[in-house]
Amino acid sequence: MDDVLRIKDLPDRIGETVTLRAWVEKTRSSGKIAFVVLRDGTGYLQCVVPKGEVDATVWEGVKTLAKETSVQVTGGVRADARSPGGVELGMRELEVIGESVDFPITPKEHGTTFLFEHRHLWLRSRRQGAIMKVRHEVIQAIRDFFYERDFCLVDTPLLTAAIGEEAGTLFETDYFDLGKAYLAQTGQLYLEAAAAALGKVYCFGPTFRAEKSKTRRHLTEFWMVEPEVAWYDSDANMGLQEDFVSYIVQRCLELRKPELELLERDTAPLEVIQPPFPRISYTDAVAKLQKHGQSIEWGRDLGAEDETTIATWYDKPVFVYNYPKEAKAFYMKLNPDDPRTVLCNDCLAPEGYGEIIGGSQREDDHDTLLARIREEGLPEDAYGWYLDLRKYGTFVHSGFGLGVERTVAWICGIPHVREAIAFPRQMHRIHP
Amino acid sequence: MDDVLRIKDLPDRIGETVTLRAWVEKTRSSGKIAFVVLRDGTGYLQCVVPKGEVDATVWEGVKTLAKETSVQVTGGVRADARSPGGVELGMRELEVIGESVDFPITPKEHGTTFLFEHRHLWLRSRRQGAIMKVRHEVIQAIRDFFYERDFCLVDTPLLTAAIGEEAGTLFETDYFDLGKAYLAQTGQLYLEAAAAALGKVYCFGPTFRAEKSKTRRHLTEFWMVEPEVAWYDSDANMGLQEDFVSYIVQRCLELRKPELELLERDTAPLEVIQPPFPRISYTDAVAKLQKHGQSIEWGRDLGAEDETTIATWYDKPVFVYNYPKEAKAFYMKLNPDDPRTVLCNDCLAPEGYGEIIGGSQREDDHDTLLARIREEGLPEDAYGWYLDLRKYGTFVHSGFGLGVERTVAWICGIPHVREAIAFPRQMHRIHP
Repeated sequence: MDDVLRIKDLPDRIGETVTLRAWVEKTRSSGKIAFVVLRDGTGYLQCVVPKGEVDATVWEGVKTLAKETSVQVTGGVRADARSPGGVELGMRELEVIGESVDFPITPKEHGTTFLFEHRHLWLRSRRQGAIMKVRHEVIQAIRDFFYERDFCLVDTPLLTAAIGEEAGTLFETDYFDLGKAYLAQTGQLYLEAAAAALGKVYCFGPTFRAEKSKTRRHLTEFWMVEPEVAWYDSDANMGLQEDFVSYIVQRCLELRKPELELLERDTAPLEVIQPPFPRISYTDAVAKLQKHGQSIEWGRDLGAEDETTIATWYDKPVFVYNYPKEAKAFYMKLNPDDPRTVLCNDCLAPEGYGEIIGGSQREDDHDTLLARIREEGLPEDAYGWYLDLRKYGTFVHSGFGLGVERTVAWICGIPHVREAIAFPRQMHRIHP
Repeated sequence: MDDVLRIKDLPDRIGETVTLRAWVEKTRSSGKIAFVVLRDGTGYLQCVVPKGEVDATVWEGVKTLAKETSVQVTGGVRADARSPGGVELGMRELEVIGESVDFPITPKEHGTTFLFEHRHLWLRSRRQGAIMKVRHEVIQAIRDFFYERDFCLVDTPLLTAAIGEEAGTLFETDYFDLGKAYLAQTGQLYLEAAAAALGKVYCFGPTFRAEKSKTRRHLTEFWMVEPEVAWYDSDANMGLQEDFVSYIVQRCLELRKPELELLERDTAPLEVIQPPFPRISYTDAVAKLQKHGQSIEWGRDLGAEDETTIATWYDKPVFVYNYPKEAKAFYMKLNPDDPRTVLCNDCLAPEGYGEIIGGSQREDDHDTLLARIREEGLPEDAYGWYLDLRKYGTFVHSGFGLGVERTVAWICGIPHVREAIAFPRQMHRIHP
């Protein structure tokens, strides 16, 4: 299927002589035998070079190989139970394709700044490669989950005239003769229109926050998946979330075991991630936090520390639901049983990874929504089309957004979201 | 699996009494029997209301239903071979959930401007829904194609300091204390770094062109998928492209027949889309165009008209390869057999849909690439990390970019890319 032979394919070629191209990870040599470990992104391959059995040029050539030299090698594929892929190569020929003099990333410890300045090369390391493959799996799992359940993907625009959530944290750009455009913080409002058209929909793309934040949970550009479902209430919405998160985690456990092992991820806390997830109301959570001596007042949004504490009460992700309306966005449905609160939830990951999902039932009453828009001092004109959805056959509907980098960081067990994306964007980092 | 009953599920419920919620598409009534067609995004359902068999309130209620009223109906599911889903509903109860007074989009003809100003409501039409579902299928096909072939997804940044292709058509934004950031026109340069790390990679996200263009092939924000493969030359790159395009088209033919029928797409020209695709060099294409009396000189890039003419020579997509280097980007590999040209290709869709892919082998020689960067007057500093890829184990590699909206427009047989995305962005349109 592939026009090029890859390391991953070698177990099918035992006994054959093959030629392949790859990069040198490392070499070691005694006086009589040398070992070259190659990598090509699909796997790692140990090549064995016995001095007495190869041409002198091959033996001399091996000695010149530096980390990340690209080479073409020819040799026999042999079964070797101790090797990761179950095979090794008896090298017979060696050709250097591209030299690599003083590759900047060495086995010694490097500082974070140095590593991120060399992110384009750092991605070649085993650890970073493993994280990228888990991310890849998480994202395909997300796509498959919704595809299998008949959600229609609807890509929402990134250049927007309307304002999604928090003004003041928006990137803006000039848009021809139409004034300013803003980089979307969410696709939700558009997606609500799509849900009325197509029933079950989702969008999945990069989103932006021009936040001056330096925490380990924030990026200025991150990927978010947002489903929106016609006729789902807040309760059904949480049901969808627990199915969804469990699906992603179990798929990674099933298909990315080698990567999680390489990352030394203890998978026991992930094995238990199965529906249902525990649920606690905001009000009960605050009471319990207060009982634990934490200084939080009813009405305030939960802070990172509060979230961490709540998460320690459970071994699964936990839903905290029905927050005070002041703490949440204008579009969330007022709780008919307690109009100080809205029908919403956050989902907090275990092990201190914090909020991975924010979701809510949406306000479906035209006049209530209009009043909320006015209360918040939002530009009414910009929301005319959004109000239309409540004017022409309004409908109960709910949805949520899951942050990909936080989810990947949690599954990989890495402390900072910046390693969960290939080229992270932070307030002090836009290069390379 | 779903907490809510959808029209699509009804064929499994024949003989049962069900309750479901949906929107009114249309109604008609004789004196004694009324018909209500409902839609919920998963399908269409005809409800039959015989005056003599329902409560007077139901009969009166049906008369008040306007287009896009949201309703809850209860009734018996009956097999009906003439109905699209094979079932109809004998309505017994009716509850109006949300009224819909003077829905703006009526069966009469509307102008394009009017329809796009009401895009949030226009998406509810059968035609627009069908296009969205084909788009959805195209995108899942793209994801599955690469997943099945062991490509690793690597999301590349949208906020970039480096400049991808054409300066002057970039959207820019202030980026904290780091000066200007630009919205990416391609993920390719980053992806080349990822290909050295992971072998076979792809990115897939929105890209931006601040072009003052009003053609039917241009959007300012569009989705592009870009694979990049270590050790592929230009020839293997075209092989991948023909497999890829054929896979997408055949999958839509297999799984989206009802939608293509609704769009009145003649599928005969799509059935033949199978590898291999014809290939013609730029030089031969120009000679042939000249013979046909078209005024094109060797050295100039092909225009839309030239492309259309070339496409008429074939009934499949055609690769035009090895363009003059002046017509193409700096990173394309100089053709060793004719250094006036570069190892690249465009892929032109049949039926006048024009270029859907641009691809190339990349310049892998450090000094040649540096010379090209200087020749083009590009900022050398910004490309330091990109040059690193040729310094540390350089490698033959190739890749391409496929535009999603053009591909969807072609498969759907619609004349303009603006209908191939839910909320199109054009130089004069950023709302809703």
